[in-house]
Amino acid sequence: MLTRYFIFPVLVNGFVCKNPMHVNAEDFFFSGLNKPGNTNNRLGSNVTTVNVNQIAGLNTLGISLARIDYAPFGVNPPHTHPRATEILTVIEGTLHVGFITSNPQNRLIFKVLNAGDVFVFPQGLIHFQFNRGHKKAVAMARLGSQNPGRIEAKDLFQSNPKIDVRVLAKAFQVDKKVIDYLQRQSGMDNNN
Amino acid sequence: MLTRYFIFPVLVNGFVCKNPMHVNAEDFFFSGLNKPGNTNNRLGSNVTTVNVNQIAGLNTLGISLARIDYAPFGVNPPHTHPRATEILTVIEGTLHVGFITSNPQNRLIFKVLNAGDVFVFPQGLIHFQFNRGHKKAVAMARLGSQNPGRIEAKDLFQSNPKIDVRVLAKAFQVDKKVIDYLQRQSGMDNNN
Amino acid sequence: MLTRYFIFPVLVNGFVCKNPMHVNAEDFFFSGLNKPGNTNNRLGSNVTTVNVNQIAGLNTLGISLARIDYAPFGVNPPHTHPRATEILTVIEGTLHVGFITSNPQNRLIFKVLNAGDVFVFPQGLIHFQFNRGHKKAVAMARLGSQNPGRIEAKDLFQSNPKIDVRVLAKAFQVDKKVIDYLQRQSGMDNNN
Amino acid sequence: MLTRYFIFPVLVNGFVCKNPMHVNAEDFFFSGLNKPGNTNNRLGSNVTTVNVNQIAGLNTLGISLARIDYAPFGVNPPHTHPRATEILTVIEGTLHVGFITSNPQNRLIFKVLNAGDVFVFPQGLIHFQFNRGHKKAVAMARLGSQNPGRIEAKDLFQSNPKIDVRVLAKAFQVDKKVIDYLQRQSGMDNNN
Amino acid sequence: MLTRYFIFPVLVNGFVCKNPMHVNAEDFFFSGLNKPGNTNNRLGSNVTTVNVNQIAGLNTLGISLARIDYAPFGVNPPHTHPRATEILTVIEGTLHVGFITSNPQNRLIFKVLNAGDVFVFPQGLIHFQFNRGHKKAVAMARLGSQNPGRIEAKDLFQSNPKIDVRVLAKAFQVDKKVIDYLQRQSGMDNNN
Amino acid sequence: MLTRYFIFPVLVNGFVCKNPMHVNAEDFFFSGLNKPGNTNNRLGSNVTTVNVNQIAGLNTLGISLARIDYAPFGVNPPHTHPRATEILTVIEGTLHVGFITSNPQNRLIFKVLNAGDVFVFPQGLIHFQFNRGHKKAVAMARLGSQNPGRIEAKDLFQSNPKIDVRVLAKAFQVDKKVIDYLQRQSGMDNNN
Repeated sequence: MLTRYFIFPVLVNGFVCKNPMHVNAEDFFFSGLNKPGNTNNRLGSNVTTVNVNQIAGLNTLGISLARIDYAPFGVNPPHTHPRATEILTVIEGTLHVGFITSNPQNRLIFKVLNAGDVFVFPQGLIHFQFNRGHKKAVAMARLGSQNPGRIEAKDLFQSNPKIDVRVLAKAFQVDKKVIDYLQRQSGMDNNN
Repeated sequence: MLTRYFIFPVLVNGFVCKNPMHVNAEDFFFSGLNKPGNTNNRLGSNVTTVNVNQIAGLNTLGISLARIDYAPFGVNPPHTHPRATEILTVIEGTLHVGFITSNPQNRLIFKVLNAGDVFVFPQGLIHFQFNRGHKKAVAMARLGSQNPGRIEAKDLFQSNPKIDVRVLAKAFQVDKKVIDYLQRQSGMDNNN
Repeated sequence: MLTRYFIFPVLVNGFVCKNPMHVNAEDFFFSGLNKPGNTNNRLGSNVTTVNVNQIAGLNTLGISLARIDYAPFGVNPPHTHPRATEILTVIEGTLHVGFITSNPQNRLIFKVLNAGDVFVFPQGLIHFQFNRGHKKAVAMARLGSQNPGRIEAKDLFQSNPKIDVRVLAKAFQVDKKVIDYLQRQSGMDNNN
Repeated sequence: MLTRYFIFPVLVNGFVCKNPMHVNAEDFFFSGLNKPGNTNNRLGSNVTTVNVNQIAGLNTLGISLARIDYAPFGVNPPHTHPRATEILTVIEGTLHVGFITSNPQNRLIFKVLNAGDVFVFPQGLIHFQFNRGHKKAVAMARLGSQNPGRIEAKDLFQSNPKIDVRVLAKAFQVDKKVIDYLQRQSGMDNNN
Repeated sequence: MLTRYFIFPVLVNGFVCKNPMHVNAEDFFFSGLNKPGNTNNRLGSNVTTVNVNQIAGLNTLGISLARIDYAPFGVNPPHTHPRATEILTVIEGTLHVGFITSNPQNRLIFKVLNAGDVFVFPQGLIHFQFNRGHKKAVAMARLGSQNPGRIEAKDLFQSNPKIDVRVLAKAFQVDKKVIDYLQRQSGMDNNN
Repeated sequence: MLTRYFIFPVLVNGFVCKNPMHVNAEDFFFSGLNKPGNTNNRLGSNVTTVNVNQIAGLNTLGISLARIDYAPFGVNPPHTHPRATEILTVIEGTLHVGFITSNPQNRLIFKVLNAGDVFVFPQGLIHFQFNRGHKKAVAMARLGSQNPGRIEAKDLFQSNPKIDVRVLAKAFQVDKKVIDYLQRQSGMDNNN
């Protein structure tokens, strides 16, 4: 017979799992997704995530979401989610969005979206959003993982420690000085 | 022995699959989620779905979404999604929401949500939203399946054909006249 | 190198997992499924479950079973399993069974079953069994989850606390008095 | 490059999939599991399977079942299911059952079962049942796959064509004459 | 908010899971797969495994590998992996390989492989490799599980305790003396 | 509503599925992985893939492999596999390898590998190999998908059509001229 004891918090998928008998409404709740994020940064964008880090009850449920704010000409730069497909809905403004298909085609599938438009970014593919207008924009993203992860293009140049300059020079077929220049740009992200 | 034959088109998960080489942006796109649904019905609510029926490219990607509009005192009645967990975000107004845990506890986990609040309804559990105020409300739901399905409480009384009145009388421990009365209410749903 | 220590019982899927080196036959064993359940209740049915609560070794194996006894005119009332498909085999007697497909069709797929007949209830759909004869009946159910869960139609009226009467009145399009009446019926289930 | 072409019908998981709109009760139904199988064979056992070959509606639902009849001293010989865990319930008689754990322990986990007893055989492990008594026995098996497969110990010696005798002589560390003798025994199975 | 505590090692899938913040390169590394295994045994083969027992970081990633050395006329005897498909690449020498399909066909799908050849053994099916030449051979296997398990044909006769001789005599349709002889051969394996 | 029609052959996961009764050894076989790939290109590396495009029988089995050849100072440039974890084994030479963890840490987990060393690249993360020596090197990769996909860093600059220069300038925080320069480098890959 099972005797259920439970003393120390235990990580399942890297997160504490709570005894199902003790869950309450707070374990399924998050507040504040109506508040604009601060886009006063060099990317002109901000990502507010609501995943298993913010809502413990999402663990094992395979879903999460995010709010993205864009200043005029703001960019949510090219990135991938290693463990999730994403659906984006535009709430306000106009966004130019796209994703790139796998090798060898590397097609850029893109679209201009307005308020009420929805677009899908399949799992693991590079995608981005760009606010090409003079007004701010807002979008909501839904992701098919409670812990989707995020890998940005800039991580190639800003990892800790950095990748050997010769690797990147060959990868991009440019002089090492160009890579060196790219690596010297200060790392930054839009809060995600 | 298998003897069933087959006519075009080919269904995978019940849906047509397109050759990956021929997909384009339209296969990942939907428009119009900013438009309010018509809540002029007896439930005072309307569900606009965006799943694999609307976006063919969602097939096998395990995610979909919906917009829900609520008139004052409108109800998105108790229902389940047999194949999906849901996250709800309130866009406008105030909603009283809840879900019921499995037997034998049958706890009602509930919360009052305002704009920007987020709540999770775990897979397969009965849940509902109720606009208790005099203003309209809007919410966005994200579901962890490209084809989540929806089963409403009223389906018990409005299936085609109907369930034997004796089954329901015993299930609810009421007189057959009560069941008969419930079955005579005209079937309706909020467009989902 | 892994050094395996293990002191406090740990919940995986909400259940203790045992070190594989220490399992024995008792971890895979349950006794008594040949004993009739007590159907002397208002539903005239009884469910004896054999899942991960009874057989610890089922954890992560994705399968469980149940014995169901029916008195004459007994009902296993409409319910769903949020995490499992079910196959039912009739051992004795005659049962009227059915399930309702998702919105918007809500077709009732039904059949009369005799001893030796088998029927499938797909995951998450509302289903029931009804013994329409004057003799008792027995069935065995196999479920595709070690912890399938069970949600009954009556839970709508008997949760703790109860759902706001206005929500249910709208859902069923009946007067609040009808809902109030349904909620006052004492909660009961058939031991599952 | 793929160049294989295709003739009707379309197989999903090797089986035809029907349009969900056209399914009916027959797609979820099987009849006759109450009939004893013919155990008049050299194993003294018979397996009646109810899987996706018999119930088309089981495709993708991940569950199936089987009835097993045992003559006195009948044996359901050592075998594995490459894609399924199994739960066995004894309906009548007494069975000696067991399974062998993986290398390197190769523990035989075994038990004597009577009517109403339940035992679990985890996925892919060698297991068997043996009716050690003078009375017939009956069991019901539930498997966690719509197409579990079955591989018997004798298949080592009875495949078509046969395995090189030198491979088996080394595997069992016996003289080739012993293998040759084993291969000459006529292939047989208990109808599964 | 989650506060992450973690004191005692906890088994997930039977293995300790490390806090993702503390992993380092050693958790993803193994050394020595270029070293030949010792084939000086009665099978004339040796398996060096690299799975979650050797690389802790493989836990939950669903992949592992093995090096197999074969003396002249060495055999990797018929076995199954209960939880994994395998791809084999021949590095050196010539191997006769095969797998047996499920009941009732029990076809032996076989091939002679030379250096650079690749062959697939689907999940759970009996397979083997045989070095039919006078030179040694080497192969690399990749398996679709971090903990694939291994069940050998000889386990039928060498489990602890042993299977009742009557079960095996019926299974193989031979005299009990033959089974007794097979069981008396000393158990051995090729280090896997 | 779905209106897309379909012409032969039928794709499951984008690939043709064969009737299981008609498979033969050729469906599970590939030849030539012992042959060095041509590294006479600007990256100094070559990838020979063996996945469901080369071995039809791998469809649905979730595993594939690749041989990678490196000229002196050759690079397999930073890339991700959107659907697979990878294990790499060095066959010959010395490789500097690494992967970058998700935001916000972006740690570079790296190691120098010699013949017989094994390293794991978890699903979806950016990884690379660099032959820092004057001798050629060879590695074998095993991937946890029959169709892992590959996305390279250069795809950011070489997609068809190209990403708007303003998006990339913001992403990398560099002048548009730098992006323009990067985009003008001729696209190339190492045959994968």
